[in-house]
Amino acid sequence: MSLGQQAASGRRIRLESLTGSTVAALRSLDVDERSAGFVADVLVTTDAWGVHTHGVKNLFGYLRRLGAGGIDAAARPRLERRGSAWGVVDAGSGLGHVAAGDAMRHAMDMAKEHGIGIVAVRNSGHFGAAGYFAWMAAQEGLVGLCMSNDVPTVAAPRSRAAVLGSNPIAYSLPAARHRPVLFDISTAAVAGGKVYQAIARGETIPSTWLLDRTGHATTDPAVFLEGGALQPAAGHKGYGFALLIEALSGPLSGASMTSTIGNWMWGDATVATDHGAAFIAIDAGTISGGGFADRVSDLIDEMNGAEPTDASAPVLVPGELEWSSYERSMTEGLVLPADVLENLERATEMTGVEFLFETDLSPEES
Amino acid sequence: MSLGQQAASGRRIRLESLTGSTVAALRSLDVDERSAGFVADVLVTTDAWGVHTHGVKNLFGYLRRLGAGGIDAAARPRLERRGSAWGVVDAGSGLGHVAAGDAMRHAMDMAKEHGIGIVAVRNSGHFGAAGYFAWMAAQEGLVGLCMSNDVPTVAAPRSRAAVLGSNPIAYSLPAARHRPVLFDISTAAVAGGKVYQAIARGETIPSTWLLDRTGHATTDPAVFLEGGALQPAAGHKGYGFALLIEALSGPLSGASMTSTIGNWMWGDATVATDHGAAFIAIDAGTISGGGFADRVSDLIDEMNGAEPTDASAPVLVPGELEWSSYERSMTEGLVLPADVLENLERATEMTGVEFLFETDLSPEES
Repeated sequence: MSLGQQAASGRRIRLESLTGSTVAALRSLDVDERSAGFVADVLVTTDAWGVHTHGVKNLFGYLRRLGAGGIDAAARPRLERRGSAWGVVDAGSGLGHVAAGDAMRHAMDMAKEHGIGIVAVRNSGHFGAAGYFAWMAAQEGLVGLCMSNDVPTVAAPRSRAAVLGSNPIAYSLPAARHRPVLFDISTAAVAGGKVYQAIARGETIPSTWLLDRTGHATTDPAVFLEGGALQPAAGHKGYGFALLIEALSGPLSGASMTSTIGNWMWGDATVATDHGAAFIAIDAGTISGGGFADRVSDLIDEMNGAEPTDASAPVLVPGELEWSSYERSMTEGLVLPADVLENLERATEMTGVEFLFETDLSPEES
Repeated sequence: MSLGQQAASGRRIRLESLTGSTVAALRSLDVDERSAGFVADVLVTTDAWGVHTHGVKNLFGYLRRLGAGGIDAAARPRLERRGSAWGVVDAGSGLGHVAAGDAMRHAMDMAKEHGIGIVAVRNSGHFGAAGYFAWMAAQEGLVGLCMSNDVPTVAAPRSRAAVLGSNPIAYSLPAARHRPVLFDISTAAVAGGKVYQAIARGETIPSTWLLDRTGHATTDPAVFLEGGALQPAAGHKGYGFALLIEALSGPLSGASMTSTIGNWMWGDATVATDHGAAFIAIDAGTISGGGFADRVSDLIDEMNGAEPTDASAPVLVPGELEWSSYERSMTEGLVLPADVLENLERATEMTGVEFLFETDLSPEES
């Protein structure tokens, strides 16, 4: 039975099993044990959050680059230069996740000593979901911010074509009585993955998502494959944030920017992409005199308690849906979408590592 | 001739004259000379940028609070607590601009020593345009970020009413061969001022701006006066940024948050508003090894050089329109809109300080 058939039959994979197979697949391409374990945790946590566009779906893409040399399995991120509360990490063209984790760890150490720390990363690659690294900080009571540049897919106001990447930004806030607030967005009006989904399903898209090659709004998703560009979120506002993220990812770190960044998914897999990224941690507990996490919880309670338009749909804060999915995934395992399973099959074909789906993972009673 | 008639006749006021009268008006309410000079520079610079919603239009509002006691003219911002790269300023219920300027100055000093610095401000008030304080950092080669909370006027996704303020955020990037990039936005879909403008003009508004009291989108701007709420920019994205800004302005500094903040324009003028704010400076020159401002200029050149949809409307970066207006205002003086002039007239009635408009300020030949 193929993985696709397994999904159709509702079979599930346990998080620890998915993690183990992901580690094994990476190890088979000579990734060291610590790095493989960390990358697997980033990817599987992201799937547990329900963000399947940035989880193990991309494993095959990383394996392909590891095999071709565009990601160097032997690379070790190096804190190349630093001051008391800042640093620059050279990722050595290794796995972006590993460099991102190291960079956020350095920023967190700086924040604990100085109140805030910033670490920029160059010579890196796609690192998965930015939110994971922001969350690292929140787990230790710090505010975490993470951002990255990418190959241009998004237009500026007035531009005919794409000029900036989808340039994601994430933050996480520690909360005394709740799971951390966890915000992770692209600065485009919509994720490119949603456009691909509409193409696959033969659907039209809202006119606020895409521009055609003449720079005009379109409802035809196929235009994305023919030189179309995503629109920025909220026009000049999303564009402005994308430009800040570009500056702090590229010029700050010394990484490539805009069109000189490699396309990690479609580009030459033998060549490093030289993505840049930036990581900020803030010791909000110390700065606030101790009250920060409590008041963030008050803020969450206030949002959750706000009168909803529809009584059956309460007001949420960023991350609440992800944490619900996470709790469910921990007990019930994951049912993965067909496109993810297809990519796992390709990973199996490449490495021989199997992914074990089961039928006996019935939901826990609660 | 009233100021309104002067505007109708196209009469102009020189920046130095507007600054002088603004200082005199503040001084008449017992604001010290340094503070009055700084507030005047913030307000007049903002008008010179063409951002008339946040310039001297608001002078009367500050004077009214200074007179009633809701802004304490005798207050001096105090760096209450600090670490090596962080600080908390108690604004003492004084003019928000003064505390904001001091806070950004502290953050800049920290950044020069440690690479980055963050200073939160509590017990403050409305501070004008956030972009001014971000620009302070860029003038010394640093990246500046500034944000503030405010009384709720903006709905969250799913909420029936306003739950967060328009929570502005600004940044500025130093650029070697250009004026600094200068970005200053509200996280609402649109500034409340534009809704008031539509009411005054009897116009309808796009359905993406406002929710009525039942939480549904409306094209009637008058609903804003009857318990309506602005929509967040780009839905959950603007809401997520507003929540981060709220956390770093209120819980980080110890200031009020959400509905406990005073309404500086419509609220009791005898009571301090207790706004919070946060200021971050980054020594991007040092972190980048010296190339930052050059590469930001490269990025600006790249955006300006991108093929436009309409050949007569080139792609800009945030701040370019404001810097054009600034250059023009420096040589030609300012023609101020009627609503600004009305407020200057109220300031004159209150303080006796006149604003001098002239007819002989012909544009320079260029």
